[in-house]
Amino acid sequence: LKVAVDAMGGDYAPAEIIKGVLEAASSIQGEILVIGRRDDIEKHLPSTTHNITVIPAAEVIEMHDAPVEAVLRKKDSSLLKAVYMVRDGTADAIVTAGNTGAAAAACHIILRCLPGINRPAIATTFPSKKGRFVVLDSGATPDADVRNLLEFAVMGSAYAETVLGKKNPRVGLLNIGEEASKGNMLTKEAHKLLSRTLPNFGGNVEGKDIFEGDFDVVVCDGFVGNVVLKTSQGCAEWIKELIRNAFPRNPVLKLIAYRIMKPGLSRLMKEVH
Amino acid sequence: LKVAVDAMGGDYAPAEIIKGVLEAASSIQGEILVIGRRDDIEKHLPSTTHNITVIPAAEVIEMHDAPVEAVLRKKDSSLLKAVYMVRDGTADAIVTAGNTGAAAAACHIILRCLPGINRPAIATTFPSKKGRFVVLDSGATPDADVRNLLEFAVMGSAYAETVLGKKNPRVGLLNIGEEASKGNMLTKEAHKLLSRTLPNFGGNVEGKDIFEGDFDVVVCDGFVGNVVLKTSQGCAEWIKELIRNAFPRNPVLKLIAYRIMKPGLSRLMKEVH
Repeated sequence: LKVAVDAMGGDYAPAEIIKGVLEAASSIQGEILVIGRRDDIEKHLPSTTHNITVIPAAEVIEMHDAPVEAVLRKKDSSLLKAVYMVRDGTADAIVTAGNTGAAAAACHIILRCLPGINRPAIATTFPSKKGRFVVLDSGATPDADVRNLLEFAVMGSAYAETVLGKKNPRVGLLNIGEEASKGNMLTKEAHKLLSRTLPNFGGNVEGKDIFEGDFDVVVCDGFVGNVVLKTSQGCAEWIKELIRNAFPRNPVLKLIAYRIMKPGLSRLMKEVH
Repeated sequence: LKVAVDAMGGDYAPAEIIKGVLEAASSIQGEILVIGRRDDIEKHLPSTTHNITVIPAAEVIEMHDAPVEAVLRKKDSSLLKAVYMVRDGTADAIVTAGNTGAAAAACHIILRCLPGINRPAIATTFPSKKGRFVVLDSGATPDADVRNLLEFAVMGSAYAETVLGKKNPRVGLLNIGEEASKGNMLTKEAHKLLSRTLPNFGGNVEGKDIFEGDFDVVVCDGFVGNVVLKTSQGCAEWIKELIRNAFPRNPVLKLIAYRIMKPGLSRLMKEVH
């Protein structure tokens, strides 16, 4: 297995990316192709690494770059080189922490979708009371149509089965009511189509119920999915901050409470991630 | 002030509704008109109440009733009677915990919108690091257009100013990126319109940032707003459950931790509501 890693993408690139590469390199069997500015990369790499190869790329797609424009213009960027390596068979997969829109656009333009799939989706896994589930699309296709939602359901089912290990995964349509009649124009139509065509469709699921874990795949358009992802993050981060502030000011009491609560709260912090 | 209360609407109606009416009656100066099945209501009311009047209504709009159909057919329902009383000037405001769609439809059909407003919005207040803010629409208009979003922004500003006491409230457009170029077709257009026409428009706000409290009004369509509301609820409820489970099993340690943490955690539970 050869994995192409975009070393220049992400808020703390390349330093944090290389840290991840080194951690992965010691535990996987394949080869890691680290793509980006050679000097920037090599100063973070130890001199001997048996399964890491640096592939030079002069340009960088920045977080604020317009996706499609960046893909068309920055041909010598680390992201594009990584995608071309997959197209040419030099690499089997891409990892990037960079500009999401550009990554989705590059893959879509250069690699195309699988037969039968018209638009890409970003799959994000969420924690729940009963293990992880996957939400898609969480940002690649903000204006999805009914057919796209069906494709997301099919792709999400494959992901839940192979990556999350769920046998016969249950698909839910994210909606604003459980009844088939509820929703906006898109979800009302999607409910009909999914009911008719998807054997593992379990009906509508509301935002308050996704964390129950009764659905393995939650399907929505990329705008809604992104809002769900970021709202959950914001809500969880804020509550974690409140938990830290819930400890008493008195240092002795604080220490006692901290000692007693530590295992439980570490578990919580880990679970809500 | 005369407030018409739909005694039959809501999961625990009329018992819980009457409890609320009694609590309110002792602290407000106006009169409360309690509307619904007289027998069901009176068995929960004490014999003497100086500012509560029971208005009989034979029918009940149930939670599963289709909104518009219910409004057109159940003319003698507690909800419709309440709305008609406002139209006729017999009451000044309505309170209902019943079928949201029916309530929105009834008000829209019977009372109409204010001049210049085309669609109703449900305003929901959320907690944040810096006090409460209002999200609208959170469910009345799932397929809102650009103009509706502008109207929601204007109504939300009025709400934030008068109800939340925010001077010159800051309006944010809920979106999937901070830049003006981000979003779906609706929010891209809405960003242009709001920038041009709304003096107190503060730009896009992402789901993860709404709990920072930098925006007093968060505008979105009714589908997205409802998803935000319910996802936050689900996320917060789950984390609260995890906090309860974070206490150690050992009963002595549990008691000590509970005693020490109680003030802080009660504050947390209250704040995240």
